[in-house]
Amino acid sequence: MATLITLLTDFGEADSYVAEVKGVLLSRVHGAALVDITHQVPPGDLRAAQYILSRAWHRFPRETVHLAVVDPGVGTERRALAAAAAGHYFVAPDNGLLSFLPPDAQFVSLTIPATAAPTFHARDVFAPTAGQLALGAALTHLGHAITDPHRAPLPAPRQNGAVAVGEVIYVDRFGTLISNVVPALVDGRPDARVTIGGTDVGVLRRTFADGERDQLIAFVGSGGTVEIAVRDGSAAKNLGVGVGAEVRV
Amino acid sequence: MATLITLLTDFGEADSYVAEVKGVLLSRVHGAALVDITHQVPPGDLRAAQYILSRAWHRFPRETVHLAVVDPGVGTERRALAAAAAGHYFVAPDNGLLSFLPPDAQFVSLTIPATAAPTFHARDVFAPTAGQLALGAALTHLGHAITDPHRAPLPAPRQNGAVAVGEVIYVDRFGTLISNVVPALVDGRPDARVTIGGTDVGVLRRTFADGERDQLIAFVGSGGTVEIAVRDGSAAKNLGVGVGAEVRV
Amino acid sequence: MATLITLLTDFGEADSYVAEVKGVLLSRVHGAALVDITHQVPPGDLRAAQYILSRAWHRFPRETVHLAVVDPGVGTERRALAAAAAGHYFVAPDNGLLSFLPPDAQFVSLTIPATAAPTFHARDVFAPTAGQLALGAALTHLGHAITDPHRAPLPAPRQNGAVAVGEVIYVDRFGTLISNVVPALVDGRPDARVTIGGTDVGVLRRTFADGERDQLIAFVGSGGTVEIAVRDGSAAKNLGVGVGAEVRV
Repeated sequence: MATLITLLTDFGEADSYVAEVKGVLLSRVHGAALVDITHQVPPGDLRAAQYILSRAWHRFPRETVHLAVVDPGVGTERRALAAAAAGHYFVAPDNGLLSFLPPDAQFVSLTIPATAAPTFHARDVFAPTAGQLALGAALTHLGHAITDPHRAPLPAPRQNGAVAVGEVIYVDRFGTLISNVVPALVDGRPDARVTIGGTDVGVLRRTFADGERDQLIAFVGSGGTVEIAVRDGSAAKNLGVGVGAEVRV
Repeated sequence: MATLITLLTDFGEADSYVAEVKGVLLSRVHGAALVDITHQVPPGDLRAAQYILSRAWHRFPRETVHLAVVDPGVGTERRALAAAAAGHYFVAPDNGLLSFLPPDAQFVSLTIPATAAPTFHARDVFAPTAGQLALGAALTHLGHAITDPHRAPLPAPRQNGAVAVGEVIYVDRFGTLISNVVPALVDGRPDARVTIGGTDVGVLRRTFADGERDQLIAFVGSGGTVEIAVRDGSAAKNLGVGVGAEVRV
Repeated sequence: MATLITLLTDFGEADSYVAEVKGVLLSRVHGAALVDITHQVPPGDLRAAQYILSRAWHRFPRETVHLAVVDPGVGTERRALAAAAAGHYFVAPDNGLLSFLPPDAQFVSLTIPATAAPTFHARDVFAPTAGQLALGAALTHLGHAITDPHRAPLPAPRQNGAVAVGEVIYVDRFGTLISNVVPALVDGRPDARVTIGGTDVGVLRRTFADGERDQLIAFVGSGGTVEIAVRDGSAAKNLGVGVGAEVRV
């Protein structure tokens, strides 16, 4: 039986909201272990939420339940989802946040209780559902199966002749620019140069520590895609670019 | 036996203070589950602390111990309290932080050990006491019963003829202005208009998602009181108001 | 068997990094209890990291595993360490972060798996090692013993005649200036005056609450050293000084 529940929201950690959700979870699942993925997603930023969750979920053991609520449409007609994939469970609004799940993921549309606060489905809809999943409820007992979840996948890179053309999809705390270009697109071209927003940053190196201080450097990062960083500094600040900047290799 | 302990402080999460408290708790209560309510209360802001804790505590299961330390008077003659209410336990300084507890709450005044650091009662007084409560100690074994805890309740709304007059008591991460006006004060007046600081924001709607982008909108929020928000924006920023602003319905 | 694992990093809490580490830990140690010391160490600030961890670790029960990763040299030739001291376990890069451990601490140098991402040893080296320690592996099974860990201890105070001369080694959230001067250096001189950066702040008091609002005051803080604070204010801001400022008593 799953008793591990992760949480990802854009609620921040200053207000009572995350604690209210945790109280509901712990009231329903005695002894559940709760792990914060993050609550610092920029308000409403579904792209950042999706990137973060797509990196983290599969590191947890099977049977983990992932509650992910970045939900600018809360209280509208948007559906509320529960999903299962690769032995993990997910609850989230139907706004594309779960677009990273594999094609064989199963989805159900949850019934919204009339008593749910229209502004706080995390507490009143998603937490109770996560609790049920943690207690072993079958996905299909929680709502009616659907096959058309809203899909809004992160942008994919493309090949332009020999060149891989992608973009920055996330900027981390260190100002590292994380692109969507995977090494397979660069195979066989060890001398390929990386450019970001037109700025040449040289060939792919092994890690940012191979650079000099203050030097831009490109490498395949821990998420498996090309990143541009500055050792002991911020590439985002140095270059003045962010999410959406074109990356060519 | 209670093994769930929540923590609310104004210590932030950058220093060692919260970890020192948790170390003490886990050294005394093997296997305790610790849940952060928040540690981002603005330093010394008892009003915010009280609002947050009053919203969160009852979401947790009975027997939970709530450690709440916003304590500008630490090391002075202010008393240190443990309390019981509705099957929950609380430890906090006697500065009004627990004013939200129901009238039948029981309080004891704790003995301050001579070895306690005068600047860190959270670690040296409240954590050990919370640990004892979590291990099943009776409240009355922890100190002497008192009936005069310091009371500093959040401001209450009043009726002015047909109009309910309250104020903003909290501003959340999203810039939503949360008032103390409860729907019962508006019963039977579905056409009543909401004003904040003199600005008309229309009749009560169901949720902020019923508004247009950038439009001010009033509704009964997830805490059960009237809130003023801006869809995808900050009402606090748009209006330039905060805690204490008058709200009339 | 130890199942308590603490985490200290400079990763912040906005990205996926901490969650990835926790997923690895929980996948390897079923039911491990994870406690965040902090993830808000300023990027690369080994001195702050060392100060925080040195205050917190001994508050936890014996057998706790402490994962501490502030690692500007990740991916270079710097070694990766596991250590044991006073019944606790530690994993950290070999960059001085563990310099506070007592002289009888034992160290091993870990083997870096070829598959480890050069930028994310916390996830790929330190978390798996912490998991092994939590599951009861002997330190010496995790790497080869070394006796020359990199040492970069926090600065020590010195005696200058009757005067103790130290410096600010940490500034906390409240702007309190924490020095390295211990009370033993002031024994027998109750009238000794404290100066910081040349500013006289009077004799040592019991606690900041003994001062008037906005008054600078010196006392022995909860970490056992002389601190300079302002009641309901920030000494760091008032004085315009920070880490490294000279403190004389």
